Amino acid sequence: LPDGRVLDGLKPLRKDNTGYDLRDLFIGAEGTLGIITAAACKLFSRPAVVVTAFVAVADPASAVALLARLRAASGDAVSTFELIPRLALEMVLRHIPQTSDPFDAAHEWYVLMEIGAGRHETGLRDMIEAELGAALEAGQVRDAALAASEAHREMFWRLRETIPEAQRGEGGSVKHDVSVTTSELPRFIVEASAAILDIVPDGRIVAYGHLGDGNLHFNVSQPPNANAAQFEALAPAINRAVHDLIAGYSGSFSAEHGIGRLKREELVRYKSAVAVDLMRSIKRAIDPKGIMNPGKVL
Amino acid sequence: LPDGRVLDGLKPLRKDNTGYDLRDLFIGAEGTLGIITAAACKLFSRPAVVVTAFVAVADPASAVALLARLRAASGDAVSTFELIPRLALEMVLRHIPQTSDPFDAAHEWYVLMEIGAGRHETGLRDMIEAELGAALEAGQVRDAALAASEAHREMFWRLRETIPEAQRGEGGSVKHDVSVTTSELPRFIVEASAAILDIVPDGRIVAYGHLGDGNLHFNVSQPPNANAAQFEALAPAINRAVHDLIAGYSGSFSAEHGIGRLKREELVRYKSAVAVDLMRSIKRAIDPKGIMNPGKVL
Repeated sequence: LPDGRVLDGLKPLRKDNTGYDLRDLFIGAEGTLGIITAAACKLFSRPAVVVTAFVAVADPASAVALLARLRAASGDAVSTFELIPRLALEMVLRHIPQTSDPFDAAHEWYVLMEIGAGRHETGLRDMIEAELGAALEAGQVRDAALAASEAHREMFWRLRETIPEAQRGEGGSVKHDVSVTTSELPRFIVEASAAILDIVPDGRIVAYGHLGDGNLHFNVSQPPNANAAQFEALAPAINRAVHDLIAGYSGSFSAEHGIGRLKREELVRYKSAVAVDLMRSIKRAIDPKGIMNPGKVL
Repeated sequence: LPDGRVLDGLKPLRKDNTGYDLRDLFIGAEGTLGIITAAACKLFSRPAVVVTAFVAVADPASAVALLARLRAASGDAVSTFELIPRLALEMVLRHIPQTSDPFDAAHEWYVLMEIGAGRHETGLRDMIEAELGAALEAGQVRDAALAASEAHREMFWRLRETIPEAQRGEGGSVKHDVSVTTSELPRFIVEASAAILDIVPDGRIVAYGHLGDGNLHFNVSQPPNANAAQFEALAPAINRAVHDLIAGYSGSFSAEHGIGRLKREELVRYKSAVAVDLMRSIKRAIDPKGIMNPGKVL
């Protein structure tokens, strides 16, 4: 704590209702209330079976429909559901060695998905193939490939995980880490893309990520051959357009990356005045001298 | 809030990292920081299959071993694992109509368990029967009955859910709501029982509940034919013995029921001074006039 005392919150109990939830106050406070020096972690069993698929979908709305279909069929066992636009895949194929397009034809949108089972089940893979087949007939899915080995699975994951690196190879970029209710993501993608292209008509939108969490990295790469610095000077205008739109969706302008220094002003602009005021009261109560990670978050 | 403002925390996002976690501060504060007037709830799919069993086990250590066995075999799908001592079952059979002993012979300890599956699986019931059979051979399980219908399942649940009512029929009682790490529960039961019987040699210990959560309702009913008021006058001494023991286990003296007025002094006695001091600082910061649910928790 700021005054040097240690708050021991390491009890690994599943249930403990003894006063205020201090633990969750320190998690996510980014060091502005205290420094976390130890943690007790809950472990989960490793799934006995994992089925991984790279799927070409018609559009983001089809991806959301496919997610709902698979959640219902699997009993909520979908553990990965990552949206990838064609543009991101092209950047990866251009910049990252040992990558290749999983399909012969090009498609506008893809999903990398995984479904696991806690215990060994022979029927899981058949069920997923049947559901993908039904989604194909319904026009939601254009093509699909199931990983046939661990190496194959890693190849699929490489196409997703190297997107940030590939995007760096394309010059300047402006990035966002936003979330909305998953069912509203398709409409948000259309509207946010239009808002960005109003500002940068040749901007290349690379909106990818955790569709299953309603969370996308809504990034824009500079137009080809443009000046990176000139493009990045548009960042404040682009951020404002995307984050204003997010506010209208009751979404989050910082879904997983936190506030730090970069989003301090967004916090004041987009959180309610009541929420910011409560945060400041708590900060003053726990760190009255303001010595913990000063200048961050608040 | 105490000053009449409304904090809107209803965004139903799966990810939102924008400042301090105010929501979890109000949950569990028992109205001492503000009054919760609305909530957005996450819904889970109803399991497609549920297998319910009433199992006689050799002792609490065997129950913990059975839980570990079933967790591993089911892929962490055990959703109910309730410990019931013979004494509690006898009270239920004595006081609650339309109940009957699931087994011909008497056993010292029982478990009511449920395992669910998100999607329809034919193998779940067979797997559970096989695991119970193996546990029987290992001496952990003495007898087991699987619910054959929804009515049968409700009959098993009735044996568990009417324990509080049945205990009321036995006169005065002293109750505790404690949790420890699940693997330490068997040793805790032995030591806490001995500590209680030191104070009330004829006390009838009814330690039952959520073994799967490490959480038991460690209750004592008065000796038969004793005076209820005289027995309940021993409550402070019994509470002190049980809660002192819990502290040695790094457990919780209030696993699920909260603090209210009844456990305010326990909070100060058993939480660390640092934790209580932080709670008071937060209370002062958010409710400086002390008008929210005064006299509760702190």
